[in-house]
Amino acid sequence: MSGVDLVVTDLAEAATLARGPVPRTGPAMAEVDRIPRAALAVADGRVAWVGPERRLRRAVRLRTGGTTVPGRGGIVVPGFVDAHTHAIFAGDRAFELPLKAAGRSYAEIARRGGGILATVRATRAASDDALVRATAERLTRMAAAGTTSVEVKSGYALDPTGELRLLRLLPRIARRTGVRVVPTFLGAHAVPPEFAGRADAYVEQIVRRMLPEVARRRLARFCDVFCEPGYFTVPQAERILRAALSLGLEAKVHAEEFVVSGGARLAARLGARSADHLLRASAGDRRQLAAAGVSAVLLPVTAFAVTRERRSPAREMVDAGVPVALGTDCSPNTWVESMPIVLAHAVHGGRLSPAEALTAATVNAAHASGLEEAGTLAPGRPADFTLFPLGSVDQLGYRFDAIPTVVYRQGNAISSRRLRQYV
Amino acid sequence: MSGVDLVVTDLAEAATLARGPVPRTGPAMAEVDRIPRAALAVADGRVAWVGPERRLRRAVRLRTGGTTVPGRGGIVVPGFVDAHTHAIFAGDRAFELPLKAAGRSYAEIARRGGGILATVRATRAASDDALVRATAERLTRMAAAGTTSVEVKSGYALDPTGELRLLRLLPRIARRTGVRVVPTFLGAHAVPPEFAGRADAYVEQIVRRMLPEVARRRLARFCDVFCEPGYFTVPQAERILRAALSLGLEAKVHAEEFVVSGGARLAARLGARSADHLLRASAGDRRQLAAAGVSAVLLPVTAFAVTRERRSPAREMVDAGVPVALGTDCSPNTWVESMPIVLAHAVHGGRLSPAEALTAATVNAAHASGLEEAGTLAPGRPADFTLFPLGSVDQLGYRFDAIPTVVYRQGNAISSRRLRQYV
Repeated sequence: MSGVDLVVTDLAEAATLARGPVPRTGPAMAEVDRIPRAALAVADGRVAWVGPERRLRRAVRLRTGGTTVPGRGGIVVPGFVDAHTHAIFAGDRAFELPLKAAGRSYAEIARRGGGILATVRATRAASDDALVRATAERLTRMAAAGTTSVEVKSGYALDPTGELRLLRLLPRIARRTGVRVVPTFLGAHAVPPEFAGRADAYVEQIVRRMLPEVARRRLARFCDVFCEPGYFTVPQAERILRAALSLGLEAKVHAEEFVVSGGARLAARLGARSADHLLRASAGDRRQLAAAGVSAVLLPVTAFAVTRERRSPAREMVDAGVPVALGTDCSPNTWVESMPIVLAHAVHGGRLSPAEALTAATVNAAHASGLEEAGTLAPGRPADFTLFPLGSVDQLGYRFDAIPTVVYRQGNAISSRRLRQYV
Repeated sequence: MSGVDLVVTDLAEAATLARGPVPRTGPAMAEVDRIPRAALAVADGRVAWVGPERRLRRAVRLRTGGTTVPGRGGIVVPGFVDAHTHAIFAGDRAFELPLKAAGRSYAEIARRGGGILATVRATRAASDDALVRATAERLTRMAAAGTTSVEVKSGYALDPTGELRLLRLLPRIARRTGVRVVPTFLGAHAVPPEFAGRADAYVEQIVRRMLPEVARRRLARFCDVFCEPGYFTVPQAERILRAALSLGLEAKVHAEEFVVSGGARLAARLGARSADHLLRASAGDRRQLAAAGVSAVLLPVTAFAVTRERRSPAREMVDAGVPVALGTDCSPNTWVESMPIVLAHAVHGGRLSPAEALTAATVNAAHASGLEEAGTLAPGRPADFTLFPLGSVDQLGYRFDAIPTVVYRQGNAISSRRLRQYV
């Protein structure tokens, strides 16, 4: 009988998501593993035991000075993995709202001084400290909503020094907040003003100057490209992503968000880790993603906010056998930090069941982010978990504004204390 | 120079919504009144002064033992008024989600054992204490999200004793939570099983037994009717509402939610305080509401969750000159408690500006709820206000998950302390 540092008792339910190892193509989208009347034990920052509470005393022994956290009849779930964010930026774009209300497209708003390049101006002008502080505040609020791991893309500097700076600052932000950060290089987020009309030359700068430096300094795990008319074409995206793959990074693609871009098929062809957005993906695209084992990272709040349709194609992707993961897409365009709100949009807009949405926000999102250890509660895995004052796992996603009681990463409470600083 | 009990300093902005008295038809939907670098002073539970911080010292004197609340560069807005909820109920309806995901209509789900009557069974079976506790928890979370006043409808008992019980419990819930509650009698929420196929007989029971008792005991300020096929027809709604008006209650109508029901025109004809939902309202309906001075209470999260369209017709109503108010519609069908989420849906789905959404969630919602004193920050008004850690009022509605620092009603903090009990 092993000694443990912390036990959580009196839980109505534990969702472990621990049905065997995660295969290369991501777990099937099915029922989460659920334990009624559960308890959880943590030792040395990892899950030591999870099971029915009546077996707790025989399974583990609380070390002297250990902590008992009362679950008060709530639920425990793995810490959320937010699989797609642009969370490192300066400024905001509230000024675009009247243009959006008047029905202007994303492209038109960009031509009127809004869009990505507006945030590039603000981000280039911000000091390291200002960027660290603003991003750490966001990640702290994300953690207070239940997120313990977050993918963060660069992409608001669009020059070699600036893009590398954003990636360099991420570990500092992770240390300050206690949130695990997966860095993604998105130099190909837009064509910077210095290269207006010369996108191919910017692609060459990415391939020849930025990517080798990102790889050499191990600043990013993934390379992503915004593959959409007005941004980067399929051949340009392929040039960038093949260079990234040859340097040991993995690929992600912003695909089929506003129009049929061909990005989903490119992701399948290259064996990308994920294709993201996918609002316009066809049945053929879905088949190709499923066959290639590419995760669909869906962003249902953005689907609601930026398009005339309200739905993210979550149901269709699941039914086609594509592993679905969820993300906030937190950016100045869609400023949402709370994964519970994303789950509610995936359920009410994307037609997932609460169990499917939870799978997509934990174990599948971990897989889409290359974090095979995270997203499940099983012995030996990191003790990343969130308590919610809800009577059942099925309440997550059903209710629009579920707020955690407390959030732990690697056995340490990361939410309540730090949140005080910022709200 | 008057003595005050509490001052809030260091505010980036105060939104007062105080441009003159509220006319009978509700204020125009325009810019909120905004004071940059503001301070606020409270005496005896009422706003004593609000203005530029540099004038604070000449305007008021803090009494001995008074409190200074640091605004930390955030904003202050009037406490939100949630103008439409069904917040007193037992149980939940998460079990309906698979039917909703499969595209079943509200009426089909009701035929399969879901819908309003499922909640009626749970609510009839619940004890007074259980109902008070569950509803108080909801109102406490609403308060933590910035709501200081909330309209609550009966309607989950559908018999004389039960409907009166729900209304009788509301003052207890208000005292326990510190939230101001406006009670609405909604006996005509659905036809109860005892009257299946005999809706007219149930209407007579409402008119002859329930309404006189509600009026005599002053249990409700408003009478509402769910005017929709399968629920109550326009003639039935008119019979109920005319009886209510003759007894001194004011009228509200659930109108044009799923189909064109004629409820909006009925509301205009009767001079109702509000017509609510209005997803299918026509240009003619809008003109009649505007001419009659009837408020449109819009519920954009429900619009997102229950219909194939994603939009609440907020822009169209404002442009037609109808005073627009917002509500959560909190119920087992759309379980949302947070007005900031409603504001985000009104902005991103309903195409309001943040200032318009704030107007709709404060002074206009107060007017739609018969609370002419609430919803503005002006000397003499109740000191109901919320601090947000945001740099500008324009961030509300732009950001999906704005969380208050602290919420005051009548000069007392009502959020943080009580929330601890429940989350």
